[in-house]
Amino acid sequence: MVLNFNWICCIFVIGAISLASARPSLRADTCGYQTCPKEKEGFVNVHLVAHTHDDAGWLKTVDQYYYGSRTQIQEAGVQYIIDSVVDELKDHPDRRFIYVEMAFFTRWWQEQSETTKSVVRELVNEGRLEFINGGWCMNDEATAHYVDIIDQMSFGLITLNETFGECGRPRISWQIDPFGHSREQASLFAQMGYDGLFFGRLDHEDKKERLAKKTMEMVWSGSDSLGKTLFHLHVCAQASLFTAVNYNLYQPPPGFCFDIYCNDEPIIDDPISKDYNVEQRVTDFLKYCQEQANAYATDSILLTMGSDFHYQDANVWFKNMDKLIKYANERQTTQGSRFNLFYSTPSCYTKALNDHAKTWPSKTDDFFPYGSDAHAYWTGYFTSRPASKYMIRQGSNLMQAKLFILFRCIQGVDTSKVGELYTMKDAMGIMQHHDAVTGTEKQHVAEDYALLLHKGVLECQKIQTAYYGKELVIGSQSLPKVSYCQLNVSQCDPSENNSRFVVNIYNSMARSVDKYVRVPVKSGTTFQVLDPQGNVVSSQSIPIAEYVKNLPGRVSSATVELVFLASQLPPLGSKSYYVQPVARKQEKTSKLNNKSSIFNEKVSVEIDDVTGLIKSVTVNGKTTQLKQEFMWYPSKSGDNSNVNQRASGAYIFRPGGNAPLTIPSSSGIKTTTYSGELVEEIHQIYNSWVGQTIRIYKGQEHVELDWVVGPLPVEDGVGKEIISRVTTSISSNGMFYTDANGRQTLLRKLDIRDSYPYTVTEPVAANYYPINSHVYIKDAVGNQLTMLVDRPQGGSSLHNGELELMVHRRCLYDDAFGVGEALNETAFGDGLVVRGTHFLILGDKTNSMKMTRSLSHELYKQPQISFIPTTLSFSEWSALYKTQQQSISRVLPVNVNLLTLETLNQEKYLMRLEHIYDVGEDSILSQPATVSIEGLFPGFTIISAEETMLGGNQFKKDSNRLVWNAASTRNEIFGQQKWDERAIPAVQLKPMEIRTFIITLVRI
Amino acid sequence: MVLNFNWICCIFVIGAISLASARPSLRADTCGYQTCPKEKEGFVNVHLVAHTHDDAGWLKTVDQYYYGSRTQIQEAGVQYIIDSVVDELKDHPDRRFIYVEMAFFTRWWQEQSETTKSVVRELVNEGRLEFINGGWCMNDEATAHYVDIIDQMSFGLITLNETFGECGRPRISWQIDPFGHSREQASLFAQMGYDGLFFGRLDHEDKKERLAKKTMEMVWSGSDSLGKTLFHLHVCAQASLFTAVNYNLYQPPPGFCFDIYCNDEPIIDDPISKDYNVEQRVTDFLKYCQEQANAYATDSILLTMGSDFHYQDANVWFKNMDKLIKYANERQTTQGSRFNLFYSTPSCYTKALNDHAKTWPSKTDDFFPYGSDAHAYWTGYFTSRPASKYMIRQGSNLMQAKLFILFRCIQGVDTSKVGELYTMKDAMGIMQHHDAVTGTEKQHVAEDYALLLHKGVLECQKIQTAYYGKELVIGSQSLPKVSYCQLNVSQCDPSENNSRFVVNIYNSMARSVDKYVRVPVKSGTTFQVLDPQGNVVSSQSIPIAEYVKNLPGRVSSATVELVFLASQLPPLGSKSYYVQPVARKQEKTSKLNNKSSIFNEKVSVEIDDVTGLIKSVTVNGKTTQLKQEFMWYPSKSGDNSNVNQRASGAYIFRPGGNAPLTIPSSSGIKTTTYSGELVEEIHQIYNSWVGQTIRIYKGQEHVELDWVVGPLPVEDGVGKEIISRVTTSISSNGMFYTDANGRQTLLRKLDIRDSYPYTVTEPVAANYYPINSHVYIKDAVGNQLTMLVDRPQGGSSLHNGELELMVHRRCLYDDAFGVGEALNETAFGDGLVVRGTHFLILGDKTNSMKMTRSLSHELYKQPQISFIPTTLSFSEWSALYKTQQQSISRVLPVNVNLLTLETLNQEKYLMRLEHIYDVGEDSILSQPATVSIEGLFPGFTIISAEETMLGGNQFKKDSNRLVWNAASTRNEIFGQQKWDERAIPAVQLKPMEIRTFIITLVRI
Repeated sequence: MVLNFNWICCIFVIGAISLASARPSLRADTCGYQTCPKEKEGFVNVHLVAHTHDDAGWLKTVDQYYYGSRTQIQEAGVQYIIDSVVDELKDHPDRRFIYVEMAFFTRWWQEQSETTKSVVRELVNEGRLEFINGGWCMNDEATAHYVDIIDQMSFGLITLNETFGECGRPRISWQIDPFGHSREQASLFAQMGYDGLFFGRLDHEDKKERLAKKTMEMVWSGSDSLGKTLFHLHVCAQASLFTAVNYNLYQPPPGFCFDIYCNDEPIIDDPISKDYNVEQRVTDFLKYCQEQANAYATDSILLTMGSDFHYQDANVWFKNMDKLIKYANERQTTQGSRFNLFYSTPSCYTKALNDHAKTWPSKTDDFFPYGSDAHAYWTGYFTSRPASKYMIRQGSNLMQAKLFILFRCIQGVDTSKVGELYTMKDAMGIMQHHDAVTGTEKQHVAEDYALLLHKGVLECQKIQTAYYGKELVIGSQSLPKVSYCQLNVSQCDPSENNSRFVVNIYNSMARSVDKYVRVPVKSGTTFQVLDPQGNVVSSQSIPIAEYVKNLPGRVSSATVELVFLASQLPPLGSKSYYVQPVARKQEKTSKLNNKSSIFNEKVSVEIDDVTGLIKSVTVNGKTTQLKQEFMWYPSKSGDNSNVNQRASGAYIFRPGGNAPLTIPSSSGIKTTTYSGELVEEIHQIYNSWVGQTIRIYKGQEHVELDWVVGPLPVEDGVGKEIISRVTTSISSNGMFYTDANGRQTLLRKLDIRDSYPYTVTEPVAANYYPINSHVYIKDAVGNQLTMLVDRPQGGSSLHNGELELMVHRRCLYDDAFGVGEALNETAFGDGLVVRGTHFLILGDKTNSMKMTRSLSHELYKQPQISFIPTTLSFSEWSALYKTQQQSISRVLPVNVNLLTLETLNQEKYLMRLEHIYDVGEDSILSQPATVSIEGLFPGFTIISAEETMLGGNQFKKDSNRLVWNAASTRNEIFGQQKWDERAIPAVQLKPMEIRTFIITLVRI
Repeated sequence: MVLNFNWICCIFVIGAISLASARPSLRADTCGYQTCPKEKEGFVNVHLVAHTHDDAGWLKTVDQYYYGSRTQIQEAGVQYIIDSVVDELKDHPDRRFIYVEMAFFTRWWQEQSETTKSVVRELVNEGRLEFINGGWCMNDEATAHYVDIIDQMSFGLITLNETFGECGRPRISWQIDPFGHSREQASLFAQMGYDGLFFGRLDHEDKKERLAKKTMEMVWSGSDSLGKTLFHLHVCAQASLFTAVNYNLYQPPPGFCFDIYCNDEPIIDDPISKDYNVEQRVTDFLKYCQEQANAYATDSILLTMGSDFHYQDANVWFKNMDKLIKYANERQTTQGSRFNLFYSTPSCYTKALNDHAKTWPSKTDDFFPYGSDAHAYWTGYFTSRPASKYMIRQGSNLMQAKLFILFRCIQGVDTSKVGELYTMKDAMGIMQHHDAVTGTEKQHVAEDYALLLHKGVLECQKIQTAYYGKELVIGSQSLPKVSYCQLNVSQCDPSENNSRFVVNIYNSMARSVDKYVRVPVKSGTTFQVLDPQGNVVSSQSIPIAEYVKNLPGRVSSATVELVFLASQLPPLGSKSYYVQPVARKQEKTSKLNNKSSIFNEKVSVEIDDVTGLIKSVTVNGKTTQLKQEFMWYPSKSGDNSNVNQRASGAYIFRPGGNAPLTIPSSSGIKTTTYSGELVEEIHQIYNSWVGQTIRIYKGQEHVELDWVVGPLPVEDGVGKEIISRVTTSISSNGMFYTDANGRQTLLRKLDIRDSYPYTVTEPVAANYYPINSHVYIKDAVGNQLTMLVDRPQGGSSLHNGELELMVHRRCLYDDAFGVGEALNETAFGDGLVVRGTHFLILGDKTNSMKMTRSLSHELYKQPQISFIPTTLSFSEWSALYKTQQQSISRVLPVNVNLLTLETLNQEKYLMRLEHIYDVGEDSILSQPATVSIEGLFPGFTIISAEETMLGGNQFKKDSNRLVWNAASTRNEIFGQQKWDERAIPAVQLKPMEIRTFIITLVRI
């Protein structure tokens, strides 16, 4: 079997669209900041920002929001909003509006006539309709993975670029609603070329402090690696971002909500009317402006004039604002007023602040967790809806893989079938929304999200199937049906009900990986596994844990899993393993009820005979005392009538007590130990709703914890929030480390906030942080405990040597932040059951970080497995079908990730390479890396590679960010820079750097 | 003193506007029916009528509705509606909309830019925005007086004509919400040139019958006099009107309300969406269309697509209707559907029906009372808010008088002060709204209405004052301050606190009248009254009734009223009487506690010594046994949860029992009798909340009943509805007669409806009818009892020989038809007190009708009295000031009323003359009348008099009404006619005819 580089291409082309190079650029230098209204010197310049906040699903589904159906739930219809706004802008050149969410806008755009489109283009060119943020949605910052953030932002930004060119490029990011703000997100925004970030939610104590000190606006340094290191021609601080916190979240001043669904009084300017109210209304408004101006550093202030799904009848808003502006500004001459009101946008406001040439305070940490009051810490959503969160991770992995496949498929092929992955890109974009991946949507919306994602998954499976159909077939016959299994419940029809089948394993990483494959089979048959070359590889049959076999919804006759190692899976490629029955007995797995340890050549785990819990872990001969235990917090109940009555809910984590409770277990934790050649496992059963397998595979240095939690019982009227807690002897001294969006790592300090005076009111919840890939503690002498997660979870270290991860929650009370439902997920008539995986790593600091970086990518980008039952023998099969594939010429360095490979059009492709290490994490791997891209794609030559900003919507050479002064220790000046012109094809990457290219390929 | 014809003109010009003769007429023959969409033969043609129903006050005030303030009460803002509709029509030539209420539209129009105005003109010219009805409001039909109806309609129609010319002329009247329908109103509409009338509310049993018989559409013969008599060149039936009842009131089909405030599902036409609903929605809609078509006579059907204050965000409605139309009509080709949907208007629908050339069923009676179910008879509002109803009558009288004054003032004067009576015209127009004069508005709205009207009254007083200031002054000195008194509570500062004063009495009728004037004065002084020539006239001082003196809010030291006769008041003119103290004793009034009768030379009234009630009335020697008594019905309480739980409320009259109860009176009715030269009175006191004066003036043949009712006690938790009931020996045989809007008379039959099968479920309420001027019973031999009212009241004849009038009501429960409040009027911390007058007439049929016609006009157009205190002697006064005025050359015939005299511009005036008798009411007075208008206005020549339709918005010669066939006994064909060309200046009037002229005057 040889590697095949002569691709016959698939039929799919994705929907992504190119950086509009052919677009008329004459508008480019007249739009943007040039269109901004002029401030009036000596006045308080009041920038009125007309905006709508359109959640991509929350109380209603995306479709319901778009069409405005189900108004009983919420009076919201996005189609009408955009219709109405465009109409109201058309004939009023002074009015401005910003729009944010491309998931909605794109949908609307596709329905418009050419006439309307050209009206909108004109509005955009003149800066009257300004896209802001411009991602597919306004993504969550705590639980969204950086890969998904970049994708969803790029999807929106590239669509904007294609539609409107440079004038449609958002200058400002607008994260007004997400529940806390991530430093990594700020870094990504900076790298996308944004000039500013605006948001609404920060901790109440932080806000109080900032208002008092006039530090609501600042410069946020988004990355230690990217901010501090000078490297080649990068001047500095490519991850620094001007950041502003809105005065009133994103709401209008109290009493000045002019939406058709608001109840505030309109401006009544008929002097004959007994309701005439101009004087009073203007006075009240200016009083508010003065109060806001008092809390900000300059005499420019921004007022958010809009809210959730506002402007369905834009005339109501604009007509009254027109009057407000008119009558307020008339006072300049009639009463010597020093307020100057005008329609503006966040970018025009940012430009105005930039023109003040001030030095701004700096910020280096992040804005987590977010406490909106003393007992409302928004840390529940870090875990809420764990099954949905996992589905999103799987979706992300699938989509990345399929983009790579499509990249390969499309090369040089002229096809009109564009947009096949659109459903998945749309779904994944939507899922990053701050009420989607967060789990803070209504139940019916969660179900719709699952459906959207499921449709995307089916689309991906179709692509995978087509890929195999084209790529594995040697002759002209067709490939038998490819099946995909629900391996998360250890269920697989093709492997259970066939004695011969082929297992295809696709690796979407640009490096080789080893993957232990687990195939559910019936017991009784002994199987043999052949590798792509026909050699028998070791395999082991191991019983499926009892608590897995009983998973609700599982329809399977499989009782055992056939385990084998798919080793050295090719980069961007697949291997097919052939499974067949043999007469001899299966490789033996010993069941040893009284054995209390498992081990491989590197690691051993010992459990306590009495408790059934892990008592120590030995890695490379070094033993650490370690207890791992599932526990639970009772959810606080309450009617939310006051701060003290706040309930634990979808957003809020508020435990009923400060110490977690033991999982009830009538006769203690029941353990069963299985030993074997490839894998050893201890199955722990706490009770009917908590079970866990402790697992060590041959050759691996980490311990895998494969847990099933649920259905959480609530018959006692108490909501339950389940944690997995690891207690060690590591002296962590109140410090722990969590990732940001699966990328950089931030130091956390128990009960301490570095940025503001902090009162301990919720000792547990307020110390929770979002974990997307890793959390660790370490001591001064280099001992480190790291936990990797397979989905976002809340976690903390509340005591010395301890780590806890919240894996599941079921609450019985709404927490009164709008969703209006208790977070009480059910399935199959009972509470939802969740299965997940933690990787536990013990080691020294260096080794741990290397394993963390490597394993977290492997956990995220797990190879994709599919099945083809067959009656052919191996030799017959391998005569007809290839058993190995690879679509990249060579593996990339281990510290480099091929982040993106996406087709833009017939010859242009978007490629991102990233350095996955932060500065100082590893003496070697944290060094800059170089990737030669020459000849990287077999059969093609890269004839050009133009670097773009991270969003893929602007060439890096065209970037012209505003220059700011930050009052950091180094008095940093950042902004407009001479961008890197490091030579292609040798792409150099410094730590944490992501470089984005539009590459042009031609067939050799 | 000589009559003065050499007027020095006043400074006022009214806001009425001329029939636009100078307007470009090229559009005239391309607008109107010519713009209508074509029907498709062989299809059910579904006319979708997009409309909004904008109450001129109801739950909110007119200002609140216009501006959209107080949305907590109701989500309604008319400014936004018209903004939005115009915007949505602009770019969509197929869309149509109708607008009705000119009180709102005019206000909006005045705020628009020239650009917007020209857009709207274009929309109107193209029939896309069609004015329908076009009155100032959609007036009530039960309690509005015909003078006010004509005025409010004309105000709207003339404004429309001035603004849009012929294309703005409404073809159709649209009375979709009023609570029952009047035959007189139909007659007036016909005379205004409407081609059709559409309404929504008719009795539930009537509707059932009509749906079953497909007679929802008919020809309504509006007047016996105008319908049946051929006269000169009037062909026939100028009062006949095509009339259609809407299928669903004025609401859209259930489930198809696409307003932004509705909750029905939008059309979701993205086939990928799981919410895609086009098939289901179209099927449901067409099913409804089929059901409606089954109930109507033709395959053209009209669907009302709108409701109260809909289309604030017109896009929501139109966008979904666009889709509905598109997808429904697609079925014509894809599924052979026979439904054809399109945007239409009531006029286009009417034209389509007319094109069918069918013969339509006919209708001669009216649509009162309206029972929406078996226990919800809308007869309470005939009386609701009796004080407000009286204020409107006073306002009407005042305004007519002031229009006449302005007519006189403006002649030949160039002035830029146009529009001074606008406030009053606006207020009076608004007051005719079907939630204003009806008394069915919320209390705060009632207070706003009162304020509007009060402002108008002040404006009228200013005009009256200016008139006197210019007209009475002989030299160059100015007239002393003119004061107006609250004579309704017998309170008058200038007469109470001055010993010499002048009483000016203005008569706005075109005939002479006698008026007994009552001037409140302190007792102790004896006064002498001098007529304009200085002759002493008889006067009499009579004590103010105890129950009047105690009226809440009365601040007066007057204890007696000085009564004198102002005789032969000149037509459209005034007399001034001079009052001075004299040494001798006042003409005597005898107080006789034990006297049980009063009399004058024609009439005597005897009361029962025991009961204190009238026991007989003798007129011209003929004695009728007659008992008059106040009684009360308990208001039914209920939560309206079902038909039987309906409460009596603002709309609904539902007594708790079928027999009225006796007014509680601890020691019987206390009576006091006063005799004197001019007037004799019996004061009856029932208790602290019912009192009445029975009064006979010298020379008068009717008995005046001057009653005070209230505060109605409700401490017992029971609402109360008070009637005045007259019981006689007249054998009325279940028949009684009531006026329609103060004009024609209709026969009523107890417990019988001529038009449909009727079930007696509410034996009292369902026999109530609106009385605006008169109600009578009679027997076969010519005895007749007539009661005249000074305001609208509900009334009936429930037993032989009986008449009852409901004078006041105070309910404690809402009746659940939207107003959301119990009708519980209070003032000064207690229930509202109401004072009113009934005229009781006994006589034969001929005499009674003559008195009725004459007295009802006198009661309606009472002379207006003002006061000027002075220190001058009479001879000094009369040397400086004229004491008599007249602005018409001669009196008109007694059967003719000068209905209108209104300035249009500097030379054009609107004049209406009406014959006030119906056919057959009087052998002489019911004959046609002739009025020579030559030289009618002293000092001026009428150089032209062009006849117009009743609304003053179309020349009669241009009228081109649609021709209809009605299946009456005569198989009437009516419509397009050769209009009267009877010679001017001799205006001939047949019974009940009103002729409207635009006259041109030049100064001689």
